[in-house]
Amino acid sequence: MCQLLALSCAEPTDVSFSLTGFAARGGLTDHHVDGWGVAFYEDRACRVFVDEKPAYQSPVAAFLKSYPIKSRNVVAHIRKATQGGARVENCHPFMRELRGQQWVFAHNGDLRPLGEPESGPYAPVGTTDSEAAFCFIMNRLSAHFAANTNTNTSTNSDTNVDDIDAVFNVIEQATRTLNTFGIFNFVLSNGQAQFAYCSTRLSYVIRHWPFSSARLVDGDLSVDFAERGTPADRTAVIATTPLTDEVWTACQPGDLLMFRSGALLRRAHVAVPADVLATSKYAVSEQSAVPA
Amino acid sequence: MCQLLALSCAEPTDVSFSLTGFAARGGLTDHHVDGWGVAFYEDRACRVFVDEKPAYQSPVAAFLKSYPIKSRNVVAHIRKATQGGARVENCHPFMRELRGQQWVFAHNGDLRPLGEPESGPYAPVGTTDSEAAFCFIMNRLSAHFAANTNTNTSTNSDTNVDDIDAVFNVIEQATRTLNTFGIFNFVLSNGQAQFAYCSTRLSYVIRHWPFSSARLVDGDLSVDFAERGTPADRTAVIATTPLTDEVWTACQPGDLLMFRSGALLRRAHVAVPADVLATSKYAVSEQSAVPA
Repeated sequence: MCQLLALSCAEPTDVSFSLTGFAARGGLTDHHVDGWGVAFYEDRACRVFVDEKPAYQSPVAAFLKSYPIKSRNVVAHIRKATQGGARVENCHPFMRELRGQQWVFAHNGDLRPLGEPESGPYAPVGTTDSEAAFCFIMNRLSAHFAANTNTNTSTNSDTNVDDIDAVFNVIEQATRTLNTFGIFNFVLSNGQAQFAYCSTRLSYVIRHWPFSSARLVDGDLSVDFAERGTPADRTAVIATTPLTDEVWTACQPGDLLMFRSGALLRRAHVAVPADVLATSKYAVSEQSAVPA
Repeated sequence: MCQLLALSCAEPTDVSFSLTGFAARGGLTDHHVDGWGVAFYEDRACRVFVDEKPAYQSPVAAFLKSYPIKSRNVVAHIRKATQGGARVENCHPFMRELRGQQWVFAHNGDLRPLGEPESGPYAPVGTTDSEAAFCFIMNRLSAHFAANTNTNTSTNSDTNVDDIDAVFNVIEQATRTLNTFGIFNFVLSNGQAQFAYCSTRLSYVIRHWPFSSARLVDGDLSVDFAERGTPADRTAVIATTPLTDEVWTACQPGDLLMFRSGALLRRAHVAVPADVLATSKYAVSEQSAVPA
């Protein structure tokens, strides 16, 4: 299994505090040693940094510590390979362009083969179940948001991919299919919103004014956000397990959430099949927040 | 205008010598200060590093010097903005996935607006003429290599994108259209081959066994490739202007070239319209190789 991290911020934010704690799980405080990656949105651009080395000893991770990129939307992942070797093409997050927006995706879980790929323009480059699932979602989005193509025959399509509620609906429907194939915790962003699904384990915390301090669970590092934050700042941090001693909210299996500018905007329930919950290596009771 | 660099290598190669000379042009020995970028293929994966800062003072460039990535196919670009601000989303190389392969593109030149976009799944994220041209080519490739979609009605399509001669043919046709819009020097790769077009200015050199030494034009640095190279090594370096004191071949306007594993495999002529040649700021006579 892997570990997920996503941040949704009202203002461009230096996220190196969260990344530091998260990267420690890549081989130092946890056993996720088969690569890692992080995607930073900067306005319309999205820069993805991936490395097949463990995060805690990755030169790319060390570089990013010395060169913090301010971002409103971040997706990160550290990998414990279940399917696909420790190769760069199998490192999350994966990225694809749809209708002039970059979309990124990271997955925690283990899916059975999806069978025949969904029709559409997106196909996996690597050999992971995760990238196959991402391409499934992207092909669904592509079909819905009728791409600018003369050959598209869909009669029930939107054209405005900026309508994040319409995006949410497509992701919800795709998740209903994909979560029957196994454990499917994920985070997905198009730079405008963060979509997060809890199949078995996911937590989040929302920081807002007046801020307090936080201490990393995975390292001897504290930050007093009150010294830095302004009333305009607001940050949602979503992670497989809590990164800090703040009061995190444990998602329930089946929660599909949408965050924007650090706020939780929408929630839906996509039931997790009983056989998936039963085979989960993670007991749901382990999801409780870590108190201060 | 901008500067292009591409490398096609028979073996995974540390290309930091060429990148060092090239990066110096990003503000130090030349005036290309509006960002830069480089894409490295590693088997099927392609990692793209871009920065809106000048290459010679970019932290990302400094990092790559200390962390050389070995690659068989590299595409790099330093930018002097003509269209689109100095923002990350406007930095080349641009990347898109098609049929499970990553494709990257970098452009030197200046195109008039292309008008209505070509039908297909690819659309620009930023505001450059270059990314619009890349999406035009990708949509042509997508239409030709009938994507896995039920709605594709093309009756004259291949399905094997590994057929680099078929890819060459599509790129040749797309170039016939695009080079009527202005100056259109480019390099494009799918990780299997390098495609390079000379609209006004492009040169290349092929290094093979027995190797000799080379000195950078843009810096006080020499490498004796004879000390390192083996008979299995072979590298083609393609650049806007020669990077070293080796004997480079100046392309003729209209040359469309395909390199694979360090060898020039194929050449076609796509005539450059007279009005484009006439408006070129670069005199063709400046293309001569720099002798040792």
